[in-house]
Amino acid sequence: MGMIDKRLAELGITLPEAAKPVANYVPWSRTGNLVFISGQGPIENGKITLQGCLGDSLSVEDGAKSARLCAINVLAQLKDACGGDLDRVRRIVKLVGFVNATPAFTDHPKVINGASDLMVEVFGDKGRHARSAVASPSLPFGISTEVEAIIEID
Amino acid sequence: MGMIDKRLAELGITLPEAAKPVANYVPWSRTGNLVFISGQGPIENGKITLQGCLGDSLSVEDGAKSARLCAINVLAQLKDACGGDLDRVRRIVKLVGFVNATPAFTDHPKVINGASDLMVEVFGDKGRHARSAVASPSLPFGISTEVEAIIEID
Amino acid sequence: MGMIDKRLAELGITLPEAAKPVANYVPWSRTGNLVFISGQGPIENGKITLQGCLGDSLSVEDGAKSARLCAINVLAQLKDACGGDLDRVRRIVKLVGFVNATPAFTDHPKVINGASDLMVEVFGDKGRHARSAVASPSLPFGISTEVEAIIEID
Repeated sequence: MGMIDKRLAELGITLPEAAKPVANYVPWSRTGNLVFISGQGPIENGKITLQGCLGDSLSVEDGAKSARLCAINVLAQLKDACGGDLDRVRRIVKLVGFVNATPAFTDHPKVINGASDLMVEVFGDKGRHARSAVASPSLPFGISTEVEAIIEID
Repeated sequence: MGMIDKRLAELGITLPEAAKPVANYVPWSRTGNLVFISGQGPIENGKITLQGCLGDSLSVEDGAKSARLCAINVLAQLKDACGGDLDRVRRIVKLVGFVNATPAFTDHPKVINGASDLMVEVFGDKGRHARSAVASPSLPFGISTEVEAIIEID
Repeated sequence: MGMIDKRLAELGITLPEAAKPVANYVPWSRTGNLVFISGQGPIENGKITLQGCLGDSLSVEDGAKSARLCAINVLAQLKDACGGDLDRVRRIVKLVGFVNATPAFTDHPKVINGASDLMVEVFGDKGRHARSAVASPSLPFGISTEVEAIIEID
């Protein structure tokens, strides 16, 4: 059991099976030492959850929970990209978080902190990343957040 | 004639001239083996087509056609970045597809499949890429989709 | 004083102190020769300015001014990433500009030119970058533009 797997266990996080591609794209690609993770949604136990719009049906807390779930699915894909060994992660380089939000919403950072906090809980300083937090007027299947990532691995 | 040029001919696809920059940005940049392609729109025969909004004036099929056109323009720029030789492409690494969509729209993946499918038709397994499909409340000149790309080349 | 610092002085641009992280993300990360800059907003003298929506309360000129301020904040972070020496910049590789805009807005490129023009004023040909200009239905703290960047450095 790797160090990061132990840390995930301490945090009570069970990574799901990495979801399989549903079209002519793949959940991750690698070029050199960089892994690009496709936009992940708030999937839990194989089901979409936390659908809706920030500033309308969902609270900031719901949104942060959604972003955290996105980040857990990022880690599931990343584990697959690492051949199962998350200790190969050198650095979470970049996250982009898209928040399904109304024109009046202004708390995108608090929502995407749900993803950023998870990365640092799991990877410590290696989990600190550059980030953009923006909005989207709608997202696939009505999900409330979508998070993509770039990670440097060994 | 390269293998990819032959494949494009088989598919009946004629790449347009790579559009020239219209401002202080360029259609592509290269760093190491990575080419970054600027966001491309549905330009056909030098003209913007398929303007409008998904969930409102345009159908999902229109949207997918628009995304396919964006991808053809990505390839035109990529060919330019490869000095004319698309056989130098090692891997389509990443696409981001922005869909001009209403708050109620949920079929962003089906729209962006228009771009993803083209990449695999042209490049086979090398065309399989990481991807994010999100929405934008509006896009330049009212286009319905915009697609940007990262590609690894020799 | 470096060449780029001299150029900034000629342009009358004083870079602010690089803003400190406000959460579990960082303003920039580096992998190999690439620096990823987190999404920057129109901060001037430590204060958010030019809040609002393009196509509604703000003009295209306001938007371009906002994007230019975002780019100045990108440079402040980049300077920090370069250990203070902006002459180490080899190439501005990519910008993504998010415009807080209404569904009817179509002039996103003119807005983001505010950022693109600054890069070329400061770095000349090294400042020419790939770019995507899209919209966001809202942005953090109500800012009108957010710009993220990828830069190659020595």
